[in-house]
Amino acid sequence: MPLPDEQIYPHATGAAEALVAKHQEPQPLVFYAGWFCPYVQRAWIALEEKGIPYQYKEVNPYKKEAHFLAINPKGLVPALEYGGHALYESLIICEFFEDAFPAHTPHLLPTDPVQRARARMAIDQISKTLVPTFQRLLPAADPEAQRTAREAAYSALRAFAAGIKGPWYLGEEFSLVDVAIAPWIVRDYIITENRGYKRAEVGAAWEAYAGRLEKRESVVNTSSLREHMAPIYGRYLRDEAQSEAARAIREGRAIP
Amino acid sequence: MPLPDEQIYPHATGAAEALVAKHQEPQPLVFYAGWFCPYVQRAWIALEEKGIPYQYKEVNPYKKEAHFLAINPKGLVPALEYGGHALYESLIICEFFEDAFPAHTPHLLPTDPVQRARARMAIDQISKTLVPTFQRLLPAADPEAQRTAREAAYSALRAFAAGIKGPWYLGEEFSLVDVAIAPWIVRDYIITENRGYKRAEVGAAWEAYAGRLEKRESVVNTSSLREHMAPIYGRYLRDEAQSEAARAIREGRAIP
Ligand SMILES: N[C@@H](CCC(=O)N[C@@H](CS)C(=O)NCC(=O)O)C(=O)O
Ligand SMILES: N[C@@H](CCC(=O)N[C@@H](CS)C(=O)NCC(=O)O)C(=O)O
Repeated sequence: MPLPDEQIYPHATGAAEALVAKHQEPQPLVFYAGWFCPYVQRAWIALEEKGIPYQYKEVNPYKKEAHFLAINPKGLVPALEYGGHALYESLIICEFFEDAFPAHTPHLLPTDPVQRARARMAIDQISKTLVPTFQRLLPAADPEAQRTAREAAYSALRAFAAGIKGPWYLGEEFSLVDVAIAPWIVRDYIITENRGYKRAEVGAAWEAYAGRLEKRESVVNTSSLREHMAPIYGRYLRDEAQSEAARAIREGRAIP
Repeated sequence: MPLPDEQIYPHATGAAEALVAKHQEPQPLVFYAGWFCPYVQRAWIALEEKGIPYQYKEVNPYKKEAHFLAINPKGLVPALEYGGHALYESLIICEFFEDAFPAHTPHLLPTDPVQRARARMAIDQISKTLVPTFQRLLPAADPEAQRTAREAAYSALRAFAAGIKGPWYLGEEFSLVDVAIAPWIVRDYIITENRGYKRAEVGAAWEAYAGRLEKRESVVNTSSLREHMAPIYGRYLRDEAQSEAARAIREGRAIP
């Protein structure tokens, strides 16, 4: 019998475990997180980059426990509790940090309105094309389906990579564009090991960018050990996952 | 042979035609629009609400003409040209107006960061659940599929309507949440006439809100005559449309 999604390793490990330990004290901002979740990692990277004080609370979103559904009726992590309000959706949370903590630098969005809009367009591209192509590559088991899914991923990534100014996506400043894609870059070893994906196939600029991003301190510090990730991704690779995202992919709906 | 998507009526009519006539002079902000497009109408409502000067240029996005692809490689309207830059994606464009024209009131997003995030969450709900349920109801021809699609639309709309503070979504202030949903409300007569949809079935709060929204000046002024809309929606109702959105729905991908 396949492992149900709710039986995941109960807490962060490695560098992320040490970071969690430092964020146990009550704070006005409570961060509901799942150590394994790429969307959570976005919000977590943003918190770390900006040095915003937060209390980390581990949640298993697949259990849909009542106390958590009361905070986020969608039952997804990441979610925040702040001033009696509940906020969710990783990208909205990241923008919230910019709006609510203006004194905390670096600012992760350009101040120029045109550049800001262009950053949001790149993030939109990540949500609408990059993440879905990664998600579709995972369950692609037979060689032909795998090749098609891999080519789709390469072509989406090449289109995105064409916009990299270097060293970061927008140039000298690390931004929410980098935050939004980083969690998928640190997880791409899964498709490399199982689905024949190679960063170099996308192109040299992408390979260099991905290499820089996975070494960024905030990215390293919010990452757990690979060994506990394996059972989770195993379910996606065998197309057995029951998460909202996995079901959406299977039923041809948009990822929530 | 079905009418191909590119053979649509070539320009705005009715109230929208009068508005287009007033926006022909060159301006720093060029608005690439299609009179029939709900995403265009979002940006157009925002421009009108804020009184931002713009030059209106009609584009048929299905023709994918080179000069337009040069501005928006995705080939979708709405798009903007501003200061030598090209911007697209209706919601990003609306946020751009807030950032780039801060002296133009009303502000369409709350200034309080938590309220701003909650507004963005409501807009995200519109994009991820409301618009797709409308889109799926259109091609649902056989009675059983139609009933299922209609119930899905009702349940998504009820969840959204539960958040209406009144008179506008966020309360006294008209906001981007209202802007984001208005174009689908002024087009819901299509599913009422063809798919058995009734506003009252969603609930009284929704019916009242929809009624207010479709009478808002900026919404009325950016709407064309229904008679020219009919051939366009006929293709969706017969599931013959070839737009990116129609193909995405058919192939079970997310709407671009
Ligand atoms: N769009 C959401 C997606 C969040 C999400 O899908 N989180 C997953 C964990 S990685 C979750 O909570 N899944 C619970 C479930 O699928 O039931 C965001 O950006 O925050
Ligand atoms: N996500 C885009 C969607 C825009 C869109 O789909 N526009 C349609 C017209 S309503 C279009 O340009 N379609 C051209 C095509 O599908 O080829 C936005 O919010 O601006």
